[in-house]
Formats: sequence, C-alpha cells, structure tokens
Amino acid sequence: MRVAIQGERGSFHHAAAVKQYGGDIDLIECESFAQVFTALEGEVADAAIVAIENSLYGSINEVYDLLLHHAHFIVAEIPWQIHQCLIGYPNTPLDQISHVYSHPVALAQCSTYLANTLDQAEKVEYTDTAGAVRLISERQDYTGAAIASAFAAELFGMAVLAADIQNHALNFTRFLAIEKQAPGSSNANKASLVLQTNHRPGALYQALGAFADRGLNLTKLQSRPIPGKVWRYMFYVDVMVDQNQLDEITSELEAQGCNVRILGSYRDQTAVSP
Amino acid sequence: MRVAIQGERGSFHHAAAVKQYGGDIDLIECESFAQVFTALEGEVADAAIVAIENSLYGSINEVYDLLLHHAHFIVAEIPWQIHQCLIGYPNTPLDQISHVYSHPVALAQCSTYLANTLDQAEKVEYTDTAGAVRLISERQDYTGAAIASAFAAELFGMAVLAADIQNHALNFTRFLAIEKQAPGSSNANKASLVLQTNHRPGALYQALGAFADRGLNLTKLQSRPIPGKVWRYMFYVDVMVDQNQLDEITSELEAQGCNVRILGSYRDQTAVSP
Repeated sequence: MRVAIQGERGSFHHAAAVKQYGGDIDLIECESFAQVFTALEGEVADAAIVAIENSLYGSINEVYDLLLHHAHFIVAEIPWQIHQCLIGYPNTPLDQISHVYSHPVALAQCSTYLANTLDQAEKVEYTDTAGAVRLISERQDYTGAAIASAFAAELFGMAVLAADIQNHALNFTRFLAIEKQAPGSSNANKASLVLQTNHRPGALYQALGAFADRGLNLTKLQSRPIPGKVWRYMFYVDVMVDQNQLDEITSELEAQGCNVRILGSYRDQTAVSP
Repeated sequence: MRVAIQGERGSFHHAAAVKQYGGDIDLIECESFAQVFTALEGEVADAAIVAIENSLYGSINEVYDLLLHHAHFIVAEIPWQIHQCLIGYPNTPLDQISHVYSHPVALAQCSTYLANTLDQAEKVEYTDTAGAVRLISERQDYTGAAIASAFAAELFGMAVLAADIQNHALNFTRFLAIEKQAPGSSNANKASLVLQTNHRPGALYQALGAFADRGLNLTKLQSRPIPGKVWRYMFYVDVMVDQNQLDEITSELEAQGCNVRILGSYRDQTAVSP
C-alpha cells in the first residue's frame, strides 16, 4: 500500500497513516497538500492522509479546497492527540541545550515550556517536526534538540527528554484517509458533503432543516468562498447519518435547488477521542 | 485620529483606512494583527482597520479570534477590490527587470503574469506589498520592481508599469473598522455576532430559525473551534438586520440557551462592491 502524506517520515501525518493502514506501508513523502492530492490523482499513491482541522487552530482551508477540486473519497477519519515532546540525545541535561529546532507551529504550541525551561536555547524554525529530529540525528548535534512526537524519536533512535510540553493539554488534529474509490460496503455512520444553496434569505436554514427534521447531529459546518462569486459561500457539512438517510437527504436538498456533493462516508471516531 | 493597521504606509490596509477616516489620519503601523488590537486596547490608537476576509482566500481566522478576545466594536465594513500593479522606476523596460519583490500572497496572486511576462526576473518574498515599493525606492534599484497597489506607487513616487496583473479579476478584500466604543446612533442595517449554541442535534438549525422566521438575509456564517472544547464550534454570523430586530433576536437566542455576543452594527457596503 502506497500512502501519500504531507511532510516526512516520523511526522504526525505518518503516525496517522500507520494507525489507518498499518506499519507495512510505502510512504510517499510530499512537500505540499497539493502534491499529496496529485500523487493520488496520478496513481503514484493508493491512499492519502491529510490533516483537515486542529482543535485549537481550526480548519485547514487548503485541504477543504483540494477536496472539492479532486474527485477522491474520504474513507476514514483519524483523530490524533498531539503530544509534543522535547527530543535529543539520551541523558542530555536541559541546561546544555543550545538550539531547539521545530516547525513554527510546534514551537508556538510549546512557547510556555520553552520560555520557562529552555530560555537559554535558540529557537530555530524548520519545515517539519520529524525533519527536525532527523536533522539533529544526522548532524550528531549533541546540544541540539527538536520538538516532535515520541513516534519521531523512536524512528530516528533518539530520546524523549520531556513529554507533553505543549501549552494546551487538549490539542487534537483530525486527519482524513482519502482514496480514489469509495469503499463498496461499510459500517459508516457519518458523512461529509459540500452544499451550495440558492442565493436567497433562509436558504441555508431550509437546507439544514433536511438534517434537523430527521434529528441528525451536524458535527461540523464550515463555510468557504465560492471562487468567482464575491461574498458567496459554500458549506462543508459533517453529519452523523447512515447511507439510506444520506440518499434521502441528498434528494431533498437537490429538490430545494441545492448543489450537493458527497465527499465520503465513514465511521465516526471523534466520539471516543477527547 | 490615530488609526492602527497591520502592515505599513501604502498597504491595502492603509488605503482602506483613508477611505474610512480620510487622508488626514495618524497611521499606527503594526507588525501583526495582535499588535493592532493591543494598540486599540491600550489607547495608542483611536480606531483600527483589519482585513476579515478575501473573496478568493476566505476568512482570516486570526482576526475572528482577536475580535472575540477583545471588547471592541465593529463600526464599519470597507470592501476593497484588489488591483495588483507592477511598480518600478518610470519607463523601465519589462525585459530589464531582474527582481520582483512582494508579499508571498501577492506574488502567488500574480503568478500567471509573472510566468508569461517576467520569466527572467527573480521573485523575492517581502513582508509587505507597500514595503516592497519602499525598498526599491530607498535602494534606487532601477532594475527592481514591486507588486503592490497604485496607491503605494503614488505614495512613494514610483510608476505603475503594468496594472491589474492578478490572476483573478474578481479579488476583493473586506476590511473592518474597529473602535473601542459603539457609535451612539447610526444608519446600520447589518450586524456581526458570535453565537454559541447548546450541544444537541438541531441547535444550530433552531438558532438560524430566529433569523429565517423574520426573512433576514445571513450574508456570512463562519465556524471557529471553541478553545478547550475539542470538536465543538462557535459561529460568527453577519446578518442584514436593523437594531430593533437585533435586540429581539438576541433575546430569542438567549431564551433558546445560546450564548450571544454582538460584535457591532454597521452599514452594509458589499451590495455595491462586486
């Protein structure tokens, strides 16, 4: 199984890929989300793992836009709690660390710990959390440290010097598994779809009625601008729903004049995650 | 009048500030949106201009979050069509331009023009579009060019070598004017509010009913994660509404168990913009 991810070996994307497809995958490392979708499109990859939102930062708009512009299917979601770790050579005293390397978002997520415990160390931005671990390992940089997952430490044979150093304990990223074909049968209880309503007052309210009238739980509603139509929006909806009801709802929305695209059906995994 | 903006003199923020408050303002140039809000908070500025969304890129999440964390009021909206221009010394032949400086977003917005017309020139990222004009002016860089607004060219005494070079003709940014006090009386016909519903199926639908039942037009609905509550969201709503109805709706939403905060009431300006 060839699985495309944004970032490199040892990243949170890689960890989510292993969780979904097992450790025996061929990892296709891509520099951007656009390249991940292109790899799937061009059949260089059989599947892709992309982050869609973080519980602190919010939605990753670029991935929402890419989902719309490619005819792929969401086949699973993988919520992942982000545990940031300080990683270096075993037994390195913290007061001897001169540089801390990581992705700017990870450095920001650990700003309190860095200020309190590693004030003397220079913070150096790097393109990838796992790449920062690789860097200090390759350079044999004994006074360097990286911020990344314990998974990255293990992969590169480095040590976790401090665990769970992020400012906010509850920091989850939700990843999606994407494939070219929708699975034939499934135990799906959740669906993602994109909705474009008529441009008149109450159109969104009427559309949401198709879900509310059936007592269905909308787990997410995300608006994005419609390209070429200034100040108009489409809506990405995640909803707890089975396949039969989804077909019914799609028909009802289309009868209302909505444009509907189903992005995929899959098993909800967020209920157990926080 | 001291008006804080993110970016520097000659930027699109500055142009929007002049449109709203006139040319006779004291401009407070800030490096980040957070600093803009702090300037208003600390009474270093009397007003602030912040971009809230772009018709191609979408919402600027950081500004939504800052609006929530400060007790300021939106007093006006300023939609602004983005016309990107190639700016340099007068009569510079395009084939003699060796470097093009601009903000990475502006470079990306003009990628087609740059590839077709200025393929020989090196593209150099700079922190600000107007700052790029200032740079070539200060350095007397006769083979340098910048991508910025005609307003920036005029301010720095440089020439527009090519106008409207962005890939997408329809590229609007919506700016907000923010002040510490809500204006006493106004001809407002639009309001922005933040809504946190109960966590049960249909709660958002019921809340939107308060608007739909009155035939009011929601012009925007933007979700953002609730900090500390994983996979839960609040909603920013823009709605065409007068002050009396807004009070009524607020009461109705609160009776439903919603948490409501009014961010401001102002006159809709988007109807005429595209």
